[in-house]
Amino acid sequence: MSFAIRPARPEDVPAILGLIRELAEYEKLLDRVVADEDAIHASLFGANPRVFCDVAEVDGAVIGQAIWFYNYSTFAGRHGIFLEDLYVQPAYRGKGIGKAFLVRLAQRCVNEGLARFEWMVLDWNAPSIAFYTSLGAEMMDEWTGCRVDGNALAKLARGG
Amino acid sequence: MSFAIRPARPEDVPAILGLIRELAEYEKLLDRVVADEDAIHASLFGANPRVFCDVAEVDGAVIGQAIWFYNYSTFAGRHGIFLEDLYVQPAYRGKGIGKAFLVRLAQRCVNEGLARFEWMVLDWNAPSIAFYTSLGAEMMDEWTGCRVDGNALAKLARGG
Repeated sequence: MSFAIRPARPEDVPAILGLIRELAEYEKLLDRVVADEDAIHASLFGANPRVFCDVAEVDGAVIGQAIWFYNYSTFAGRHGIFLEDLYVQPAYRGKGIGKAFLVRLAQRCVNEGLARFEWMVLDWNAPSIAFYTSLGAEMMDEWTGCRVDGNALAKLARGG
Repeated sequence: MSFAIRPARPEDVPAILGLIRELAEYEKLLDRVVADEDAIHASLFGANPRVFCDVAEVDGAVIGQAIWFYNYSTFAGRHGIFLEDLYVQPAYRGKGIGKAFLVRLAQRCVNEGLARFEWMVLDWNAPSIAFYTSLGAEMMDEWTGCRVDGNALAKLARGG
C-alpha cells in the first residue's frame, strides 16, 4: 500500500468533514460536531485562511488528515505550528501515515523558520504518548488548558 | 487608579518586548527569550498578521498586555481565540486589569461568532486556577501538550 500526503483541495471538503465526524465518534463526542461543509469550506478555502489541512490519499481516496494553524511563541518572537486534529482511518493505521503527517509539518516548521511544533494528547493515551516521545516530543506536563465556551463565554463577555 | 485597554500600536513594541522579558524573568526563563523589537514588530504589524496584542495603559504607560491568536475547533467548524501571554506588572495587580483583558477577549469571541476562548495555566498555580474557574473556565485536565522544538524539530523534519 502506498499513500501520498498533499494539501487539501476544495473538493476534499466532504471527506474532511467525514473524517472530523469519525474522530468525534471515536472520542464519543459526535453530538458536539456542528461543523458542516460550508463552514469547513469557508475556514480552509476562504480569503486569507487561518487554518490549513493536509490529507493522506490511498488509491484516490482521502483516508486521513492533519488540520493545523499557526500559534506563536512570544519568547521566540516567531510563529509555530499547532496541530489541532490528526486522524487516520483505522484500516490504514500502523503504516507510517501518522508519522508522515508529523514529519511533513516538522519540515514546514524548518522551512518557514518556525519556533516549534505542538499538539495535544489525552493523558491516558499511553501508546500515543510513547509514540510522540519517540519522535522527540516533550510532554508539557506542568500546563493545563483553560477553556471558556457556550453560556460561560457569553457570561464572561458581559463582565463575568 | 484608572486603566484603559486598547489594541497595541507600533510605538508600543519596546514596551511589549519589555513585558515579555518581565514575564520570562518571573518564570525564570529569561535565557530563552530571543525575541527582539524587529521580530515583535514584524509579527504584530506586518502584512496579514497572525498574532495580536492588546495593552493596558495607566497614565500613558503600558503596564500589561494580552498576546493572542486565532485557534480552530474542527467540531465547531469555527475559529476561537487562544491567549498566549497575559501579563500585568506586579504594581498593578489586584485592580481588575487581568480580568478586563479576559472580558475584552470574550467580547471579541462573541462579536466575531467564535467557538471558544482558551489559554494555559501552570497546574501548580492554584490562585490563578481558582480565578479562572470563577470566570467560567473549564480545566482541560485530561489533555497534555506535546512540543517539538530545537534539535528534535530538525531531526523530525529529517524523518524522525
